[in-house]
Parts: sequence; structure tokens; C-alpha cells
Amino acid sequence: MTTTIARPTEPADAIPRRADDESITATGEGLRRALDGPFHATKQRWRREVRAEHMTRDPGMSVEEARDWALEKVIELSKLDFVTAGFPKEFGGSGTLAESVANFEMLAMGDLSLTIKSGVQHGLYGGAIMNLGTRYHHETFLRDAVTVDTPGCFAMTELDHGSDVQNLETTITWIPETQEFEVHSPHPRAAKCYIGNAARDGRMAAVFGQLIVDGDNHGVHVILVPIRDEAGRDLPGVTTGDHGHKGGLNGVDNGTILFDHVRVPRLMLLDKFGGVDEEGQYHSPIEKRSARFFTMLGTLVRGRICVGGGAASATRKALSIATRYALERKQFRRPNLGDEITLMEYQLHQRKLMPNIARAYAYGFAQNEVALKLQAVTDEDHRNTTSSRELETRAAGMKLLQTRWANDTVQVCREACGGAGYMSENGITLTRQDVDIFATFEGDNTALALLVAKALLLDYKATWGDLNLRDTAQKTAAMVGSAILERTTARAPIERLIKAARGKSEEEQLLARGWHIQTFDFREKHIVEGLAQRMRAAGKESPETQFDAINATQTHMVAAARAHMDRVVLEAFIEGIEECTDDYIRAILVRVCDLYALATIEEHRAWYMEHNVFDGRRSKSVTAAVDKLCHELADKSLELVEGLGVPRKWLNSTIA
Amino acid sequence: MTTTIARPTEPADAIPRRADDESITATGEGLRRALDGPFHATKQRWRREVRAEHMTRDPGMSVEEARDWALEKVIELSKLDFVTAGFPKEFGGSGTLAESVANFEMLAMGDLSLTIKSGVQHGLYGGAIMNLGTRYHHETFLRDAVTVDTPGCFAMTELDHGSDVQNLETTITWIPETQEFEVHSPHPRAAKCYIGNAARDGRMAAVFGQLIVDGDNHGVHVILVPIRDEAGRDLPGVTTGDHGHKGGLNGVDNGTILFDHVRVPRLMLLDKFGGVDEEGQYHSPIEKRSARFFTMLGTLVRGRICVGGGAASATRKALSIATRYALERKQFRRPNLGDEITLMEYQLHQRKLMPNIARAYAYGFAQNEVALKLQAVTDEDHRNTTSSRELETRAAGMKLLQTRWANDTVQVCREACGGAGYMSENGITLTRQDVDIFATFEGDNTALALLVAKALLLDYKATWGDLNLRDTAQKTAAMVGSAILERTTARAPIERLIKAARGKSEEEQLLARGWHIQTFDFREKHIVEGLAQRMRAAGKESPETQFDAINATQTHMVAAARAHMDRVVLEAFIEGIEECTDDYIRAILVRVCDLYALATIEEHRAWYMEHNVFDGRRSKSVTAAVDKLCHELADKSLELVEGLGVPRKWLNSTIA
Repeated sequence: MTTTIARPTEPADAIPRRADDESITATGEGLRRALDGPFHATKQRWRREVRAEHMTRDPGMSVEEARDWALEKVIELSKLDFVTAGFPKEFGGSGTLAESVANFEMLAMGDLSLTIKSGVQHGLYGGAIMNLGTRYHHETFLRDAVTVDTPGCFAMTELDHGSDVQNLETTITWIPETQEFEVHSPHPRAAKCYIGNAARDGRMAAVFGQLIVDGDNHGVHVILVPIRDEAGRDLPGVTTGDHGHKGGLNGVDNGTILFDHVRVPRLMLLDKFGGVDEEGQYHSPIEKRSARFFTMLGTLVRGRICVGGGAASATRKALSIATRYALERKQFRRPNLGDEITLMEYQLHQRKLMPNIARAYAYGFAQNEVALKLQAVTDEDHRNTTSSRELETRAAGMKLLQTRWANDTVQVCREACGGAGYMSENGITLTRQDVDIFATFEGDNTALALLVAKALLLDYKATWGDLNLRDTAQKTAAMVGSAILERTTARAPIERLIKAARGKSEEEQLLARGWHIQTFDFREKHIVEGLAQRMRAAGKESPETQFDAINATQTHMVAAARAHMDRVVLEAFIEGIEECTDDYIRAILVRVCDLYALATIEEHRAWYMEHNVFDGRRSKSVTAAVDKLCHELADKSLELVEGLGVPRKWLNSTIA
Repeated sequence: MTTTIARPTEPADAIPRRADDESITATGEGLRRALDGPFHATKQRWRREVRAEHMTRDPGMSVEEARDWALEKVIELSKLDFVTAGFPKEFGGSGTLAESVANFEMLAMGDLSLTIKSGVQHGLYGGAIMNLGTRYHHETFLRDAVTVDTPGCFAMTELDHGSDVQNLETTITWIPETQEFEVHSPHPRAAKCYIGNAARDGRMAAVFGQLIVDGDNHGVHVILVPIRDEAGRDLPGVTTGDHGHKGGLNGVDNGTILFDHVRVPRLMLLDKFGGVDEEGQYHSPIEKRSARFFTMLGTLVRGRICVGGGAASATRKALSIATRYALERKQFRRPNLGDEITLMEYQLHQRKLMPNIARAYAYGFAQNEVALKLQAVTDEDHRNTTSSRELETRAAGMKLLQTRWANDTVQVCREACGGAGYMSENGITLTRQDVDIFATFEGDNTALALLVAKALLLDYKATWGDLNLRDTAQKTAAMVGSAILERTTARAPIERLIKAARGKSEEEQLLARGWHIQTFDFREKHIVEGLAQRMRAAGKESPETQFDAINATQTHMVAAARAHMDRVVLEAFIEGIEECTDDYIRAILVRVCDLYALATIEEHRAWYMEHNVFDGRRSKSVTAAVDKLCHELADKSLELVEGLGVPRKWLNSTIA
């Protein structure tokens, strides 16, 4: 069925090179180049210039020590220019927005507390000023955000309102007498919570609240509010709280902020999408309140893209450690007291690691695509609504896909290293703890899955980020999500591949990319169409029964989101292979893509059998093909994890 | 298909009672009684007398603080008699061996560091003296083990040999001249590692090593070796090391021990199963070296049983917190600005929690059965080989089942509580971190699955705990595991249930216990038989190809172990229901068992379709039935988690 991948003219594998300051096989280097894609130069600079001590820490640090460390390092990295991409040059920035995503991904190969500390400061706080502010805000606040001279908070979530951002309860009330805004938390459960930089370091907060002018609520806006003085004391009317110890990310000082009628000058409102003039009149370039809200949120989509990519980087690190360990660690002997056997030779071990390595490649190519899309949408200043909505859907989908996979896979890696994996000196435990919350922050994964499904139903026409499913049920398009179901990329090669798969024997089809594509396509289309039918039916229910009818579609919605994203990722992988110009590397990537595609089909084989796409015999042959690919690719596992791009010097692991 | 569970004469649910010092519904109390089963009195004593401060700690403690705390608390609990069951009364013990398992389970509802600290001290170190020592050892060492006056280590695992205990490299060499043994680590990789109490507190170690007498190796034996003086300094020839910070269990001081020709007197050898007399002659009641080894290990099976039960307790705690939160926390409103909706009302949330609550009951009943079996086997002094092997297989199976489920489910609970679940004050994060290693210690889950599968193939006849699969392949019985495939319990009611399911319509069958049983039975039998065929074929391969052939069965072996255990658990659940005398509680348990059975069938629906047990239509109806049961039982979710038996006062959670 398959043949061995061989490059006869490839003696270089045996010769360690000195690219990015460490030895790496030529194959590993080629894979790294392919997977880095458009961000290769940016990422290579990190690998060359950033040492482990810049971004990995002692896991035994106390909460206070970890916070001190993260603050110190984020300042250091901003001086070295490694976290300032995306900001205009005049305010201390360097590099494009897409590169800022690549930077985040590289940082996440080190320590996730530091990554999130930078994400809060530069991505969220700095990003809010950039995207929601106007010239005045950029000139006044941006430089200090970049240098961390003003540590800032992104104060969105409240205790009672997490996913339900539209109904936040903090108010920003216009006070005409003094030309000020009054920021207020109406009750303790309206306190901002889980806010990075709030417990200790923050001096300023970008606060989300309902903007009230003359008794009219113009919806959620964002205002800058100083929260602490130079000495770190809460300013009058501000009460901060400390969440203390957390399940991970203890280098980030998450806390609460409660506002008691705090006044700030008119100009502190980030007013790109809506503000109050000196006459006390509200103006906005976007008339409709909900459209305005989702446009504002849309400009902040980078955070979600970064979090997905960061989770993937952490997983790549864990996979690198577990794979290197599996290639060294021996357990038991071959029959007749032969050689000792390495863990990687065992079928179960291959099954644990190899499909996840394949997924790391698949998600990596798809993540590159999202970062480029972010750049394109930003270059148009978010004016193309369809592109913006597409990007938001993709960002949500990639975030949930990668963070779910990260949680599951880092755990697999920990267990694959046995007791050694549990010792913090081996570099997995802290990652495991830190990556946990990635499933929840920047959009809870469950809520995001429902949002993606909603977008599939509404064909991007309606407002995006709202979880009003009743509305969705009533408006679900007759022609389901045609734009979404379209090829996301690489149209021509994909049609060619589908054509090539036709007429092949069943066995040949298993490794025919065209068959994979059709199999992914069918699942997506069938699930989304079925969901649309149910949703339309639910839309016609009486108000009393409607909640139950919509509620009963939730697992179906999650399945739709997943099926959609699986297909998008497969297409991105195919595109990535198309762009690889080295035939040998390409041949390996083809095999890795086979494994990604078949392992995904295998995972959903119950669905395929339920829907008569294939029978039990075919299902078993898919499993056999996955087993075989795992076995074959295990021989290339070192090169494959080298390709994942985490320099060995950053692994911070005694066993790797 | 189903009817609502209602007890017309049950007004008590609304009236909080003061049983075990907290309010609990009458239904919750009834469920708790049923699930506690034979251990109700023991467990109620814990609930009445043990306060949260006895066994929960501040999650922000440093490693040193956590170690201090755990040592202090384990001494305290031993004085209060809560961890001394299983030891003879004359040496400070109280209660049966089965009760010691129940004690461990209750302790694990508090803090797992403390649980493992006690497990190392009383279960492993004390247990080794009890089970492998003779009168002299009991009289000399047991009392100080119970009181923790001598903190002890259980020094089995070595850096190079974890699962492969038979090939440990530490030597225990008889020195005739001085009537001593010399304990020695031949090289640094033979150091004992991950040993609890080794880094700091331990004074004595029960050391596993190859016993060499006059150049003859009699296999692995255990000897007591003092490792530190009163002041805590390493004794001459002993070098201890500290693993430092770990992924969890930081209250346990895990470390390494290296021995450099350390001499101890003859009497320090725990010689119940083999020792050297004053003339320097080796004697053992068991002639065959490997049989001796497995008999020795067999007497230590309690550790594995405790670890499985402890993981389940931790999961019960996390489920209790997540369920209470889901019943309080509201998110979004019903259509037309109606009531706010609690998380528990959402289909996806029910799907996350309810099948796991059902599993908690299923595993709880099965765990009780194992504890009773341990008592029975011990009462016969492990003389009945078949019962002993059965117990060991069951212990291994329950350990892997419960610890896998614990890791997955505590994570689900964390995520189900959103950001709040990540704040350590809410009681889940520490449990998540601590329970992680339960998948690895006391037998790596992968290795245990292979052992269970091996037992299924060999029908308990051969030596048990050995992972020599080549031997297994050659000896696989013609008649596969008939003893194992037999009903483990409740024969009569099960036959009755199977009979009752016959002739029912397809829809009725879904909730017919007899159909569940047959469906579970078929999966187990078919997988084990298929595995036996492959194993026998592998046994006939040439030495060159045999490893690959056996290796290729690994996923099949894991599937066999899982199918076997699923069936054993279902039978235990049925038995538990049989023993419940309260009709109302019984009716609830029947429904919970439906959910356990159908959720398990759903999980394996791909297998069932692959093997034509049912078609796609039936598969979808299983899923629909699971959805429905989740929805119905969500109404009883508070009572159900009360029944799981974790007193609210121990939850140590702000949100619960």
C-alpha cells in the first residue's frame, strides 16, 4: 500500500548542522522551513537570538516569584523587539500584525505565563488602544504600552458575565457638567474578574462597559481608567482584588477590579467606533448598536488567533520532549534476551504520539493561513464584512480546535514519559498546568463551537459573535452557509486530487487525498444540512417549547463546528504541501497528511458508519492504515519533531 | 420510553437533615448509603468526625510548606485512628484490611498529597513489613510505622526499571563473614527513584533488590535499610536525592536513593517468602523463583486497589463541585427575556457531567467489590492462587479504569466551571494536578492493560504480573479465559435480566438491562477471542518476526482489557442495585445504571457497527437515549452528587 520514503541523495541527515545555533538534521530543517512557511525568517530570528533563560523559568517558583519573573522578562523582550510587532514604528513597534502572531507562537514555546503576560500587555491592552482608540490615544498611551512603562489591563469579563459580553453590567456614564465619564460597577458580581495585571502590576485598565449618555444606552464601549498610583496603591474609587494561586499561569497576576463612581476625562473613551463630543452628543460611524459591538470585538480577533497558536506551540514542545524520550528510553527486551526495546517501537506508544505529531503539522499550516488572513483583513481596515466574519469564524474554530487538542495531547505526552514526565525538571508539567485555561479564556470552547455553528447556518450574513440562538433558529438560511462550505483554499489542486481519486480501488482510495477530501466534505455538509433543518424546525416552535428544541441541537452544533474545522484544516495542509518546493520534504509531508486525514476519519468512523458512508470492513481498514502509517512515520519521528520548530535548547527538560 | 422517577410519599427531600453534620437531602442520604454499601459505617465516621482543616490545604503552599503540612497531618490522622486499619491491634492498628481501603478513599476526598503520604507510610512501607516480614519484623518495626515515628520508604522503582520490576538492578548480597547483607546500586541509573519519603522525611527504606547468596540469584526480595540518622543526615553509603517540584503531589517528598555497599544485619531481610538462615542457607516456602516473586508482589495488591479508589474519590469531589456550580451559575436568558438559564439546563453541560456521575456510581460499586475480595483473599492468607490471581487482575483493571476516568473527568469538571474552575480557591485545580500521576504510579496504565489482557488469555493459570508476552503468545489457552469470562457476581439476577430482555421490541430493549448485559458480554467475548487467535498465531512466528507480530496486538490487548472491565463493572452495578432495599433509591439507581450502560455502549458504538452487532439506526437511537437520560437525571443531579458521599464541608471550594 505504501512505499518507504527515501531520498537517495540525502546523506546530510547524519551530519548535524549549526542552523539556529543547535544541531538539527537536514530533514528536520527542511520540515521546519515548510511548516514555518511565510514566518520562517521571523521564527528563525527567535531561534537564533533567544536563549532558554530569556523565557523559561524554574517551575518551583512561588506565585510572587513567578510574577516578578514574568514582569521582568516581558520588559526585557520588549526592549529586544521580540514582542512589539503589530504596533506602528513611531510608537516603538516593529513588524506586521501577522508577525505578532508568529512572535506569540514562539514565545509560547518558552513559558506560557510570560506569553500571556505579554499577550495581556501588548496584545489585549495595547491592541485595544490600537484598534479602538484614535490618534490621541495612540500618541498618548501606545508607547508606554509597548515598553510596559504602563502595565495595562483588558477589563472585559465580569463575575456574572463571561461569554455573555453584550450584557456586561459595568456602566460608563456621561457626566455633562464636568465633561467626564463615570465608570461604575453596580454590584459586587459586576466586578471585572480574571483580569491579567489587575492583582498587582496594572496601572491602567481598558474597561468594557455600557455607555450611557443622557439615559440612552449605546451598548458596550471601552474606556481607559487609571487604577493604581505610582506606588501601586488603588486609586480612589477603585478596589482591586487578587485571585491568588491558580491552576497554572501563576506568573500572571490575575485579579478583580470593582469601580465605585470613578470619574475620568472625556478623552479617555476609546472612541474609534463611538464617542461623545464636547457638546455631549454621541456619535458613531456605525449606526446599529449590535453591529457596532461586533465590529469593535472583531478588531480584537488577534487575541483569539494568538491563543490558539500559543496552545499549539506548547503542544509542539511537549511532543518534542515525549518523542525524544521515547527514542531514548528502553523498556524490556526482544524475545530471547535480544536488544532492549525503545518506547517508540511499541505500537501503543506510536499510537499515542504519531497522530498527534501529524495534527501538529495540520494545525500549523492552518494557523499560518489564519495569521495571513488577519493581516489581509486588517490591511482593509476590517471594511470587508464578509472577510471579517470569515476570519472571526476561522479564528474561533482554530482556537477551540487547537486548545482542545493541546489539553489532551500535553497530557498524553506527560503520561508517555511515565514518572519522569511528572517531574517538573522535565519540562512538561508546567506546560500542562498553564495550557489548561486556554480552553476557557479568549472565548470558552463550548461557546465558540456554538458560534462557529451559528456562522455556518447564517452564511456570514448576520451579526457574528452573538449567541442568540433563537434568532439563529428563525433566520437560518434556506441555502445553508454556501460561502462557508466553499473551498477555503487551494481550489485547483483539490479538484485535481478529487478527480485523481475517482475509479481507484478501495484499498488505493485509503491513501488517495481526493477520497480524504470527499470524506471530510461529506461529513461537514451532511451535519450542517441536518442542523439547518433542525434549527428551522426549532424556529417554528412556540415560545414555551422553543428553548428545549434549540437546546437539543447543541451537540449537533458542536459536531458541525468540528466537521467544518476539520475540513478547513485538511485544505490548509494540502495548500502547505503545494507550496513546498523540496520533493523529499514534500514526500514526507504527504505521508504526514495521510496520517492526519485517516486518523481524523478514524476518530469519526462511528458517524460514517451511522450515515452509511462506509461499512465495518472499510472502517477496520482505516484503522489498519493508521496503524501502518504510525509505524512507518515513527522511523522519522526525530526529524518530524525537529520540524515542529522548538529549538532543543528551549525544551528545558532533563530527559530530552 | 421512560417514566419520571417519583416517590409520592417523599416530602423529605425539601427538609435538610443533620446527618453527618451537614444538610443533605433524604434522597442524597439514601444514595450515599447504597453506594457506601458495606463501608457505610466506616465512611460515616469520617464524615462526622473529620473536618476540612484535617485534610485540605492552601493550594498556594510552597513545596517545603506542603511537605511540612502533609507530615504533620499524617501523624495527626494516625493518632485519631483514621489511617491505621489493616494493622494488627497489638501494633496500634484498628479495623480490617477492607476498611483500610475505605479509609484511603475517604482521605482522598481531602488532599491527595496527604493521602499518598499516608499511602506510602502505612500502605506501602507498613504493608511491606506486614506482608513480607515475619514476627520479628512486626514486633520491631510495625508500631513505629503506624505512628510515623519511623517515616519509611517503599524503594521499588529504579530509574532504568519501572514497570519491569523483575529486572531491578539493586543487589542484596549475603556476606557470610559478618552475617550481613550488603545493599548496592551497581550504577547511577539503578538508583531508586520517585520514592515517597526519600527526599526528606524517610528514616528507613524497604528496598527491593536481587538477593544474591553464594553467587546464586534468588530473585527480587525486600530488605529494610536505615537511610538517615535522627538529624536527617544520609547514613554512610546512602545518597538520597530530591526530585523537587513535581506536576502535583508536592506534599510528598519524592526522591532518589543510591546505595554504595551498605551493610545491614541478617534480620533486616523481610523473609516471609525467602531468607537466609544463620548458616547462610537460603530457604523459601516457594521453590520457583518467579512464583515467589509474584506471590510477594501479590500480597502488596492493596496499594493498587487504594490508588484506583482514591482517584475515584477525587473525581467524585470534582463532580460535586462542578454540579453544584452548574445548578447555581446562570448564563443567558430564555427567549423573550425570560428567566436566566442555569448551566445544568444546557444539553452540552448535561452531557459533560451526567454520564460521569453515572460512572462514579458504577465504579463505586465495583470498587466496593474489590475491597471485599481483598479481604477474602487475605483471610485465606493468599493461599488460593486462583482467587489471588483474580483479585490481582481485578485490582489492575479497576486501577486503570478509574485513574484514566479520573484524569479525563476532573479536567471536564474544571472546564465546566469556566474561569472559576481555574482559581485554586475553588477546589479543583490541586485535585487535577495531584490525580495526574495516578495514571502512572502503582503500575503504569498501559502496562496494566497489557497485564489484564494477558490474564484474560491465560485463564489465571500462569504467573500473573509478568509482561513476557512472547511466553503468553506461546501459551495462550485454547479455551480462552473461561474463568475470567464467567459472571463475576450476581449470577441469578443477571440470568433473569437476560431472559426478561428477550422478545422485547428494539425500543424497549434499549432500557432493558438484559440487552445491556448481552451487549457488553458480546464485546468482551469477541475481542478476547480475536486476540487469542492473533496471539496464538504470533506464538508460531519465527523469533525474528515474533516481536512485530506480538507488538501489533497491543491496541487489541488494551481493547480486551477495557471490554472485560466494562462488563465486570456493569455486573457490580447490578449487584449493588440488588442489595438496595429502598425502592425509591433503587429506582433512581436503575436509571443511573441505564445511563452508565448506554453511555458505555455509545462510546464503543463504532466497534459494535464494525462487528454488525447493530446498525447505524440503532446506534443513533442509543445516542438519543443517552441524551434523554442525561436530561432526566439532571433534575436529580444534586441528590446524585450528595450520594457520591463527599461532605460539602470538605469541598474547600468557594463556588460550591
